[in-house]
Amino acid sequence: MVGKLLEPEIREMIAQRDFNALRTGFLEWPPADLAELLTDLPQEEQVIIFRVLPSSVAADTFEYLDVDVQTRLIHAMGQEQVAAILNEMSPDDRTTLLEELPANVVSQLLRLLTPRERAVAQSLLNYPESSVGRLMTPNFVSVRESWTVAQVLDHIRRHGADSETLNVIYVVDEAGHLVDDVRINEFLLKPLETEVRLLHGGKVPPLKVTDLESEAVEIFRKYDRTVLPVVDSDEKLLGIVTVDDVLDVAVEETTEDIQKLGAVEALDEPYLDVSLWKLVRKRAVWLVVLFVGEMLTATAMGVFEEQIARAVVLALFVPLIISSGGNSGSQATTLIIRAMALGEVRLRDWWRVMRREVQAGFFLGCILAVIGFARITIWTLFSKQYGPHGMLVGATVSLSLVGVVLWGTLAGSMLPFILRRLGLDPATSSAPFVATLVDVTGLIIYFSIATTVLRGTLL
Amino acid sequence: MVGKLLEPEIREMIAQRDFNALRTGFLEWPPADLAELLTDLPQEEQVIIFRVLPSSVAADTFEYLDVDVQTRLIHAMGQEQVAAILNEMSPDDRTTLLEELPANVVSQLLRLLTPRERAVAQSLLNYPESSVGRLMTPNFVSVRESWTVAQVLDHIRRHGADSETLNVIYVVDEAGHLVDDVRINEFLLKPLETEVRLLHGGKVPPLKVTDLESEAVEIFRKYDRTVLPVVDSDEKLLGIVTVDDVLDVAVEETTEDIQKLGAVEALDEPYLDVSLWKLVRKRAVWLVVLFVGEMLTATAMGVFEEQIARAVVLALFVPLIISSGGNSGSQATTLIIRAMALGEVRLRDWWRVMRREVQAGFFLGCILAVIGFARITIWTLFSKQYGPHGMLVGATVSLSLVGVVLWGTLAGSMLPFILRRLGLDPATSSAPFVATLVDVTGLIIYFSIATTVLRGTLL
Repeated sequence: MVGKLLEPEIREMIAQRDFNALRTGFLEWPPADLAELLTDLPQEEQVIIFRVLPSSVAADTFEYLDVDVQTRLIHAMGQEQVAAILNEMSPDDRTTLLEELPANVVSQLLRLLTPRERAVAQSLLNYPESSVGRLMTPNFVSVRESWTVAQVLDHIRRHGADSETLNVIYVVDEAGHLVDDVRINEFLLKPLETEVRLLHGGKVPPLKVTDLESEAVEIFRKYDRTVLPVVDSDEKLLGIVTVDDVLDVAVEETTEDIQKLGAVEALDEPYLDVSLWKLVRKRAVWLVVLFVGEMLTATAMGVFEEQIARAVVLALFVPLIISSGGNSGSQATTLIIRAMALGEVRLRDWWRVMRREVQAGFFLGCILAVIGFARITIWTLFSKQYGPHGMLVGATVSLSLVGVVLWGTLAGSMLPFILRRLGLDPATSSAPFVATLVDVTGLIIYFSIATTVLRGTLL
Repeated sequence: MVGKLLEPEIREMIAQRDFNALRTGFLEWPPADLAELLTDLPQEEQVIIFRVLPSSVAADTFEYLDVDVQTRLIHAMGQEQVAAILNEMSPDDRTTLLEELPANVVSQLLRLLTPRERAVAQSLLNYPESSVGRLMTPNFVSVRESWTVAQVLDHIRRHGADSETLNVIYVVDEAGHLVDDVRINEFLLKPLETEVRLLHGGKVPPLKVTDLESEAVEIFRKYDRTVLPVVDSDEKLLGIVTVDDVLDVAVEETTEDIQKLGAVEALDEPYLDVSLWKLVRKRAVWLVVLFVGEMLTATAMGVFEEQIARAVVLALFVPLIISSGGNSGSQATTLIIRAMALGEVRLRDWWRVMRREVQAGFFLGCILAVIGFARITIWTLFSKQYGPHGMLVGATVSLSLVGVVLWGTLAGSMLPFILRRLGLDPATSSAPFVATLVDVTGLIIYFSIATTVLRGTLL
């Protein structure tokens, strides 16, 4: 960390084309910082800097770039330079890049790899999208149960340089089946003559190569591990997955959930990188669906047009009432969807949740009813706007609020369960979706109550 | 993993009170699985099982329990048992438990610790809440620059057993200042006579003990590390933070963001563990705020009461129009808040975002306008509900939709910037908050356009 060059000095060196100084200066920088700096530079300078860096540092830095920056660089760099970087990249990060590229580019790039790396890259790309295989790297250290700690340390010293991590060492049998995973601590702390079979293993169930990435996220979170082994259906050890890649998947999944909650289809890219056209498309779908659903409110209001004509005062409270239902529904659906995503609430809990939400919805409705009633009553005392039957209007609004908030809460909390039961993503029951549903039914609740309460007076 | 007992067998042993078999069986289980199994059992059985386990396994398992289960166990277990577990727990997990307990319980528990552990626990609790100090453990291995790899390995073998992790070794000077952090790989791969100063260090800036936990999350995500050193203002090495604890913080923060987006105050507990009363309270605050804000819609509609009385047809489209504004606003605010949380969008990007959102909002408004116009025109051809001026009503609704959706998109995208600029949490501009804001202004837009378009015909 000492002697690290500051950013202005670096920019100055680039401007001066002082590549030797740059090269030395950069070696003091963590690759993540280098990647951040590079992202801000024009592409020609990015290419130059990558040419200046030793290829292992270049590959490390390249791995930290966003996939779209990587893609543009691949096209801008010379073949030799691309080959050097691709061959040095970790297999898992390389898969992440290759899976975003069109098939013809991928086959061009594969030809630049050494036969060994090409075989690795191809086998990883053969696993289905979003499967653990796509996150995996086959570079790990495996040892035998019968070896001693001293033999293992010697083996690591000779064959461990390529391994993605040495934090965990894998014990396999002759056929390559996973027997156990042992943290490096054991090898560093136990006497050198201890046999591997006597060491304290992880006992954590391995990932299956065909598991979904989202399942891997849950297992990492549950067991607090930094790396997990991956096996095939035969329990044969194929590779390892590290926590940093899983963390990226978790962040992506949460982003998708949040976007869905806001009634946007998952963008799959950083907001500012998405084209305007794609941004509109990802939002238009749901906006139109909700709009068409919301048209039913015009139909519902049409049914009650006569009542509105006779008592225009009723129309004034329509937005207040339906939005209260929508808001309480948004609250409920948000809470339940997040609790489901974290595994705090499972399908079988629906009855417990419903009981709580009915009570919560009733209380919340009563709170709003009291405030609404007070507002209308006080207004009636000082103004003639609500006519001679202000108190009755107040009663209508209050009763409707209890009904609509209760209904909104119930709908918002139960919809995620229904969607999950149907095998759909609970996050589809977005806040706007629940609000739309509640708007239509809320109108019917309101006008039905109005018809009953105001019969003989206003209606 | 071989020979692991299945859950039914375990339950059978508990029923049979066969504690010797249980003890042996449990040692084959990962502590995280044990903790999960225990959570489902009645408390008396939990206490019994903890008594059966060797204290290091008991502490490991205890660490995986939820804090509320831990708290209940602390009260149910005997003093000796509590002392054994608390003394064996990792200091960071112990802090997480202690910070949730009332002061008098904490001081009772601290008295159960050995003098050494008590000093550690107290010093960690002295750091401010939500600071990196609260996530830290002081158990790490530190070495000197002048040592050789062989000396380091020897040092680890003698003093490394208590360290939280041996994945990274810390280089300090005589006064304990952090000089570098070096992955264990270097010590396992480089020749034994290599001096530590020649090893390849991490070069990542250390965390400050007073940094916010949320800052630590960002640094872990950026540098893909599994453990980071923590220093005081004098660059003295105080402890380390591991990625699993940071992951927990990240999940909690995201949950808070999502709950705020749904207009719920952060629950801070799993949904099913929150009391009904607390659940209502966390939602009532925002529901009431939004309700009071939404009351302005009744005022706004009151202003246009005369127009509604003359053309009741106008009232029919009120929910459709304001909800479209609300939905487009929800979409925009959700996208921006998430992009801000991920650091994809910064304060200085507001102008870029505004330009995009104005265009997106205009397109989206036009799409809805076309659908709305078609719906009203077709209806007018077959029904008399919208009166003789159906086309004009259609034009009013369409124009209003463009205006309201544009305004909703703009408000939803800019509010998070305004809130952040004011030093507030952008997630406060929840979907319902934006919807409420847009409802009130949407009504004004709608009735203003109606007054202009329908003057001389309906109005």
